[in-house]
Amino acid sequence: MRMAELSRESGVPVATIKYYLREGLLPPGERTSPNQARYGEEHVRRLRLVRALLEVGGLTVAAAREVVEAIDQRAPTHSLLGVIQCGLPVPKTEPDPEARAWALEKIEPVVRKHGWKGGPGDVVFEALVGAVAAFAGLERVELVERLDEYAALADRMAELDLAAVGSLTSPESIVEGAAIGTVLGDAMFTALRRLAQRRASAERFRD
Amino acid sequence: MRMAELSRESGVPVATIKYYLREGLLPPGERTSPNQARYGEEHVRRLRLVRALLEVGGLTVAAAREVVEAIDQRAPTHSLLGVIQCGLPVPKTEPDPEARAWALEKIEPVVRKHGWKGGPGDVVFEALVGAVAAFAGLERVELVERLDEYAALADRMAELDLAAVGSLTSPESIVEGAAIGTVLGDAMFTALRRLAQRRASAERFRD
Repeated sequence: MRMAELSRESGVPVATIKYYLREGLLPPGERTSPNQARYGEEHVRRLRLVRALLEVGGLTVAAAREVVEAIDQRAPTHSLLGVIQCGLPVPKTEPDPEARAWALEKIEPVVRKHGWKGGPGDVVFEALVGAVAAFAGLERVELVERLDEYAALADRMAELDLAAVGSLTSPESIVEGAAIGTVLGDAMFTALRRLAQRRASAERFRD
Repeated sequence: MRMAELSRESGVPVATIKYYLREGLLPPGERTSPNQARYGEEHVRRLRLVRALLEVGGLTVAAAREVVEAIDQRAPTHSLLGVIQCGLPVPKTEPDPEARAWALEKIEPVVRKHGWKGGPGDVVFEALVGAVAAFAGLERVELVERLDEYAALADRMAELDLAAVGSLTSPESIVEGAAIGTVLGDAMFTALRRLAQRRASAERFRD
């Protein structure tokens, strides 16, 4: 199909398609004349993935480029998921040194115990340090004292997350599913948790 | 203590204390002369709670006022937690009618099965509708198909959340713990989940 048809088929405006081509997010079509190229179903699929990465996942263009390059180099699934995870935006905080040290003391034994990878400097580990450090000085650290129990639930949830992704077959769909699932899945679970808290509160505190 | 000392003790600027007094977030001190009042430890505690609600919890002044009024009316713990939950900001989305209908079809049996309260129009229920509806049309609905399993994990997490809050004794500390725990706890769990996903991916997909 020509560019105009690719645009209709995918719902992506021609100007956006041209931008993705320039940025290396979409491979060039097969040239049929100096001014024309032919595109195939793989372009439709790739456009869908790129939009999911940028618009749902919130990846930067550079991070999305790393993802599509990893797909094109036929990186194994575990590497693909690693590239996605590093590309997904996480809240960045800079806790003061005291709060940071306090958070590290809480986190490191838990990370070790659960056999997780990651340490200072790693973007996901630092997101956890920032989240835990935010409790420091608030004197409401009941949740942090239960970090190990929350970590155990995170392990169970990750099994579910990966089972969902593992049911997919192509590298594109796995990567797309991981990006969408991580970002939309966080929002979904936050809402589920609040509905569940309501019931737990009724059970525990109803007079 | 006088206003200046209350400010030093609590770390809240005098101008902010006066604003909280005007907005009914802080009860007036005991008047000792036409221009002076005396404040006590209960004002220090209340200031801490109000800051936690506004700055960590992200409540509006009106929502925080409802929380402190509920405390002052000695509302039972379950009601207090309900007031907090309605006051906490949740993402608002307006899915198109088709996506909304699709989401409701997925959600309603799960909510019923788990014995949760909430339906259309309720702010937390609508947050879940918005989160699930965001998957509609993306063709990556593996997570949504497992909504029931995620709901079961949400039930277990809510038990943990409520156990943490239930270890507190005063209404102020319960409300403060719930607001802080809900908002910071979401961020903490999101980071835990990503670290856990990394390990689960290594186990499932490592060649």
